Amino acid sequence: MRTAYQEQLSSLTVQLGEMCGLAGVAMERATQSLLQADLALAEQVISDHDRITEISARAEEAAFLLLALQGPVAGDLRAIVSGIQIVADIDRMGALALHVAKIARRRHPQHALPEEVNGYFAEMGRVAVELSRSAQEVLETLDPDKAARIREEDDAMDDLHRHLFSVLMDKDWKHGVTAAVDVTLLSRFYERFADHAVEVARRVIFTATGSFPEDGTFEEPR
Amino acid sequence: MRTAYQEQLSSLTVQLGEMCGLAGVAMERATQSLLQADLALAEQVISDHDRITEISARAEEAAFLLLALQGPVAGDLRAIVSGIQIVADIDRMGALALHVAKIARRRHPQHALPEEVNGYFAEMGRVAVELSRSAQEVLETLDPDKAARIREEDDAMDDLHRHLFSVLMDKDWKHGVTAAVDVTLLSRFYERFADHAVEVARRVIFTATGSFPEDGTFEEPR
Repeated sequence: MRTAYQEQLSSLTVQLGEMCGLAGVAMERATQSLLQADLALAEQVISDHDRITEISARAEEAAFLLLALQGPVAGDLRAIVSGIQIVADIDRMGALALHVAKIARRRHPQHALPEEVNGYFAEMGRVAVELSRSAQEVLETLDPDKAARIREEDDAMDDLHRHLFSVLMDKDWKHGVTAAVDVTLLSRFYERFADHAVEVARRVIFTATGSFPEDGTFEEPR
Repeated sequence: MRTAYQEQLSSLTVQLGEMCGLAGVAMERATQSLLQADLALAEQVISDHDRITEISARAEEAAFLLLALQGPVAGDLRAIVSGIQIVADIDRMGALALHVAKIARRRHPQHALPEEVNGYFAEMGRVAVELSRSAQEVLETLDPDKAARIREEDDAMDDLHRHLFSVLMDKDWKHGVTAAVDVTLLSRFYERFADHAVEVARRVIFTATGSFPEDGTFEEPR
């Protein structure tokens, strides 16, 4: 039989997984709003953001109460401390999706992106959503092997980010400085979103094993 | 007489203050390296960064041990949990100073900045260093009034960031896309550095009072 304590612990995990799922949905919709200059979808991402903030506050409070009332030790204590740190990472993922949606809204009815770079952002969006799904799975399964595979997805994001910058800095960039500024910020937002998903997985590994991988599989996010 | 427990608690605070001080020094030097295309100074910021990472790991471990071994309650528990969150914010401040130094290094022997925007970055650097000093003071004094004044400094940063973007997006921008991309990223790094300093102060207030200010004095960082 599960105790109330175990219920509270697993409810914290459920909240983290839910937040991660919502951040992924937000980034998926933000990317669509960006690619299609879809104002309604951008507005939806912006208004849905409160939901992530709410769960974030609740998860942080739940973790604090577990510490205050249950005096957890060893692995449980580690899991709760990681949970508090993970809340901040997922919170940030949600904020980055919000930023993407706000740029789409700011440029509406124009497209923020020159058509030339649409493909890059479609792909960055796909990888970002994939990463948030993987992070959510890792949160729910605590599977270190799955966590390690997140790194490959993040490498794909870094490649896209790098290629995009070489397109931007090419002398043939014809879309002016405003578009360059938007593309620079947007690319940074996707890259940071990915970094935070990697960091979530890195912390889950820490929870599961008590140490971070030393083999460079998980680099510090930039 | 102070107990070993109280010593450990105050040593955590000292570590956080020290990290915050180092992040401020890093940003001060990174700004100089940027403004003067000073490669040696940029390299120094980059090699000194490990020190921040080390204290960060030690502070996180110290907080964890306090939770594991001392079973703190009430205000102390709150302070330690905040400490864990604050470590992440200051860590990020250090990483942002590092990013500034890396851009200075990448463009050397050229200046990364067109002369036209030097003044903005000199001022953003000054405000950033000021904010890190204020955050350090707040950490060391737990003074909510001082924390509230941080907001004004952050408003100054937001104004600079906004003005700079209007300079960038002006049709008269003559410095090309590469400079625009660098200026965009750099401006974002200074703005985020400031946001994290504000967040440190916000968490200190939470520690001191048990609740975040509700009057909008402390907005969520972007």
